[in-house]
Amino acid sequence: MNSLCEPDKKDLDMRLKKIEGQVRGIQRMIDEDKYCVDILTQINAVRGALKKVGLKILDRHTHGCVQRAIKNEEGDAIINELMDVLTKFTN
Amino acid sequence: MNSLCEPDKKDLDMRLKKIEGQVRGIQRMIDEDKYCVDILTQINAVRGALKKVGLKILDRHTHGCVQRAIKNEEGDAIINELMDVLTKFTN
Amino acid sequence: MNSLCEPDKKDLDMRLKKIEGQVRGIQRMIDEDKYCVDILTQINAVRGALKKVGLKILDRHTHGCVQRAIKNEEGDAIINELMDVLTKFTN
Amino acid sequence: MNSLCEPDKKDLDMRLKKIEGQVRGIQRMIDEDKYCVDILTQINAVRGALKKVGLKILDRHTHGCVQRAIKNEEGDAIINELMDVLTKFTN
Repeated sequence: MNSLCEPDKKDLDMRLKKIEGQVRGIQRMIDEDKYCVDILTQINAVRGALKKVGLKILDRHTHGCVQRAIKNEEGDAIINELMDVLTKFTN
Repeated sequence: MNSLCEPDKKDLDMRLKKIEGQVRGIQRMIDEDKYCVDILTQINAVRGALKKVGLKILDRHTHGCVQRAIKNEEGDAIINELMDVLTKFTN
Repeated sequence: MNSLCEPDKKDLDMRLKKIEGQVRGIQRMIDEDKYCVDILTQINAVRGALKKVGLKILDRHTHGCVQRAIKNEEGDAIINELMDVLTKFTN
Repeated sequence: MNSLCEPDKKDLDMRLKKIEGQVRGIQRMIDEDKYCVDILTQINAVRGALKKVGLKILDRHTHGCVQRAIKNEEGDAIINELMDVLTKFTN
């Protein structure tokens, strides 16, 4: 179980569908020999969009799962887990 | 025209197809109420894969288009353009 | 008041002193006309070191201040603040 | 020998002196038990400033050393070197 409510899920689903379309668009740009810098600009856009999705889920997770675990005296384990995933997120 | 030869294009196409599948996987994970941290781990994987695709195109562009432009005395404009896209890539 | 205990503070102080020395080293490299790529390698080292310091403080903050606030029913405000600083940290 | 002219060196020197002072400021903040989030905000500022210094040197290097090497038919080696340092810069 995660901490995403229905409106969150709808919003994320819409964002990910758009990202999926953009990834397909990048394949097409490569296929059609489009200019490298234009492909890179599109890659930057997708990376930014994915980061936003990640930050949104991180936010929901911290407000939800993490907060609940802390109130149940299980904070340290879930915070360690959060820090691990966050460290990778900053790479 | 870009600087991607056929083997490059095949390799990038394969990587982007995999990324597209991973993005769909993330949508499914959200839909099936999978644990936030597992979704975030998957998002980190896609971000890393996209970065590799970007670095690969950047490499081809610099070895190809940029090098050619410099030999044709048109280096400064293409380097400025490269720096702009690169600055966004580091965000 | 922050959430850093004495051993944390000693460790961070040692790291920051080293970073300060590295920054001075970069100034010297520029002054002595050292090769750009060697200067950039050194800049990468300092950026990595600073990131580690940031992640360490983030970890202490979450285990300490954030956990305390949540137990005192003041979780949402401190988590919003955490997310803001974290978003900037991922830039 | 690098590709930095005197005005570049002056500008970078000024920026690095400021960064050095900011790093000392962070040590002081830790020492004086300042709030974690304020320390993190300051760390973000220094990381941003260091990135700008890095991008500036990268720009000078590409316009200078890289361009010269390419004109001397030594482009591939210097571009590989550039890509290596750039890959680390994006971490």
